[in-house]
Amino acid sequence: MDVVLVSPRNPLNIGAAARAMANFGFSHLSVVAPFEAHWREARSAVGAPELLENAHQHATLAEAVTECTLVIGTGTLTYRKPEQPVVSLPDLAPLIRQELERSGRIALVFGPEKHGLTRNDLSLCHLLLEIPTDPQQPSMNLGQAVAVCLYELAVRGPAKDPPIDVKLPPASTCGDLELLATIVEQTMVSADYSRGSMHEANRHELRLLLRRLAPNASDTRRLLGLFRRILWRLKPHRGRN
Amino acid sequence: MDVVLVSPRNPLNIGAAARAMANFGFSHLSVVAPFEAHWREARSAVGAPELLENAHQHATLAEAVTECTLVIGTGTLTYRKPEQPVVSLPDLAPLIRQELERSGRIALVFGPEKHGLTRNDLSLCHLLLEIPTDPQQPSMNLGQAVAVCLYELAVRGPAKDPPIDVKLPPASTCGDLELLATIVEQTMVSADYSRGSMHEANRHELRLLLRRLAPNASDTRRLLGLFRRILWRLKPHRGRN
Repeated sequence: MDVVLVSPRNPLNIGAAARAMANFGFSHLSVVAPFEAHWREARSAVGAPELLENAHQHATLAEAVTECTLVIGTGTLTYRKPEQPVVSLPDLAPLIRQELERSGRIALVFGPEKHGLTRNDLSLCHLLLEIPTDPQQPSMNLGQAVAVCLYELAVRGPAKDPPIDVKLPPASTCGDLELLATIVEQTMVSADYSRGSMHEANRHELRLLLRRLAPNASDTRRLLGLFRRILWRLKPHRGRN
Repeated sequence: MDVVLVSPRNPLNIGAAARAMANFGFSHLSVVAPFEAHWREARSAVGAPELLENAHQHATLAEAVTECTLVIGTGTLTYRKPEQPVVSLPDLAPLIRQELERSGRIALVFGPEKHGLTRNDLSLCHLLLEIPTDPQQPSMNLGQAVAVCLYELAVRGPAKDPPIDVKLPPASTCGDLELLATIVEQTMVSADYSRGSMHEANRHELRLLLRRLAPNASDTRRLLGLFRRILWRLKPHRGRN
């Protein structure tokens, strides 16, 4: 499983996240658009300097989760109405096991300290994960939130029984879904469905829709082929071929 | 439940512990022999300044847990052989529920950042709690360890069903047990059982023994009466009364 920190402001929190990952046996850390350039030197990464050294830095969340088949955004829901299914941390383990049984790759995404993930970041997530905190004080420290999530998954996440031998079709990666979203969006524009002022809102809805539909890898290939064909037919140069 | 931090070095960790307590609905914090005098001003106690303000400061752990009936010490067991029963964090909830059903008061005790609880601190604990961390990196950050324990207890600790209506005898407080230990120790000395060089070791064993025996409150009163009587009979001034 990948731990992804989006725009963390304080390198001490990045180090604390790395330390918790080492404590609970996780090793893939991605950092998206960090505020401080020298975050790899965080002294709070006790016992985890190699993990920080090997962490990946990305410019965008979309780039960080390209290979993932299940993206789980974290946050409290006190101030917003969720657009995705919400799962509470104590109920997450069975979902994780299911995804690992179909050989998927999971990202657990944490937003910046002050405000959490943006609506745009969340549009890349299949699920919202809520840590059941006190409604009076819902906002957790980033390093502590990472520790609590990884504890839960380390203790209750991995399959205790051998994986069930059912051949589920491989899931679509986020890279595939983004490619499909791009082609569908171009199609919308070409078909005059999506006017300029609606581009942003339509892109957002489209991302959410594709994650709700959860097409498997071959579904996504099929849809890509269909929309590429439509797009080619819609383009003005079509007559020339 | 009381959260007790023994000799914390970094006030930021005290603040982080307070923040996690507020996140998971706990409010009684005790700080024993802190390293920095101005720990109440820790800026990391986001959303929990009142909790820090109302925290109790004690000179010793014995003083901090005087009123408690179940003292749970935390730590990793990598470097030492435990002298008490060990319980893993995911298995703690039923014990907590049982203790709360008999109207006990529980302390969850965390040692200093570098070395954890001393053997002497641990002799005041009924149980050792282990967070199941990776054997390669067992040592957790203090604030993260507090967060993980409180999450587990908040989610799985409190009785979901109404408390069972069984009248269990009230448990002995740690203050009662320490009083009993003191009287028994004086008896040992008076009876020439405990020579000077053995005082320390005998006191340690005695504390562990009393917590293993777990006398209830009326047992402890009875034992106190017995040993007071024995002590009075052993003392040289006895003949004068």
